[in-house]
Amino acid sequence: MEIAIVTFDDFTDLDLFILWDLLNRVEVPGWRVRFLGEAASHTSSTGVEVKMHGALGEADGSDAVLFCSGRGSRLKARDEKFLSAFRLDESRQLIGAIDSGALLLGALGLLKGRRATTYPSAELKSLLEGMGAEVVWESFVREGNVATAAQCLAGQHLAGWVIETLAGAGQKEKALKSVAPLDTLSVEL
Amino acid sequence: MEIAIVTFDDFTDLDLFILWDLLNRVEVPGWRVRFLGEAASHTSSTGVEVKMHGALGEADGSDAVLFCSGRGSRLKARDEKFLSAFRLDESRQLIGAIDSGALLLGALGLLKGRRATTYPSAELKSLLEGMGAEVVWESFVREGNVATAAQCLAGQHLAGWVIETLAGAGQKEKALKSVAPLDTLSVEL
Repeated sequence: MEIAIVTFDDFTDLDLFILWDLLNRVEVPGWRVRFLGEAASHTSSTGVEVKMHGALGEADGSDAVLFCSGRGSRLKARDEKFLSAFRLDESRQLIGAIDSGALLLGALGLLKGRRATTYPSAELKSLLEGMGAEVVWESFVREGNVATAAQCLAGQHLAGWVIETLAGAGQKEKALKSVAPLDTLSVEL
Repeated sequence: MEIAIVTFDDFTDLDLFILWDLLNRVEVPGWRVRFLGEAASHTSSTGVEVKMHGALGEADGSDAVLFCSGRGSRLKARDEKFLSAFRLDESRQLIGAIDSGALLLGALGLLKGRRATTYPSAELKSLLEGMGAEVVWESFVREGNVATAAQCLAGQHLAGWVIETLAGAGQKEKALKSVAPLDTLSVEL
């Protein structure tokens, strides 16, 4: 399975790395997670530079495509060159976004007439409504093969959905349990 | 305030970035968060290369020093050159670790006779007991100015403790609330 995490400059660190880390905990032959971007590397809002593994166009052939979030998403949602790199197909791909990454789903026409969530701001709500979405304040919203999640740590729901769908419930439970704040009762050595 | 996050090769992505992202959400004049390491950059277990901002020795002058976790911590806990770079002082510094980063606190003599938590494994429990710690399975354990947290997302408790102590409860609440999976009832636009 090929999992693509699409990012861009001025992204939010935790949005990217909660998806990346959880998705990399899957132990299934042929499971591969990659960062896709326009440049060889992209830099977060705090200045962390992350190397990409491939170009945006490679998202089309992935089994799941997740869009990162951050201040840079506003620019990218109006960037025709960026948007035209994608020919996503929800009939054969899982497609999702965290926080303001929902703007990119909206700009690609994937949220028309659909419920979606995002980071809670009037600006994002208004922009998404302009793209035809019905904005709801929930941590995770799935409509068919398109999903959105709100606030960084809800990346758990987004990654969990991809893992459960493509690798099974056991892999999802293992991944999520291994990062949750330790629950005394669950320790079995 | 100077906040140091100490890392090394073969670290765990989410352990590093949950601390980094949360600590960077503090809005207080003079607040600065930096990655410290032995080399110009360090690479995680999944291959993510992160540039450091300074050398290990700069931890001594920081107001808070947090040790990252990951497979590489076992090697570093036996690496005299690495350990001798630190002259930490818990009377004037907050000192903490996530998961197996507790091995580094132990190797520096900071856990003797103290309660500490770590990623739940028999190996880590045994190593920490050998360093004089009493291992307990809790998500966050504080003993004076020394604290440990267990499993990646408990980095929230560790970062929250540093933020509350050095920047106030309001900054802590703001930072943690901004990443928590969205709670419908809390949205105020």
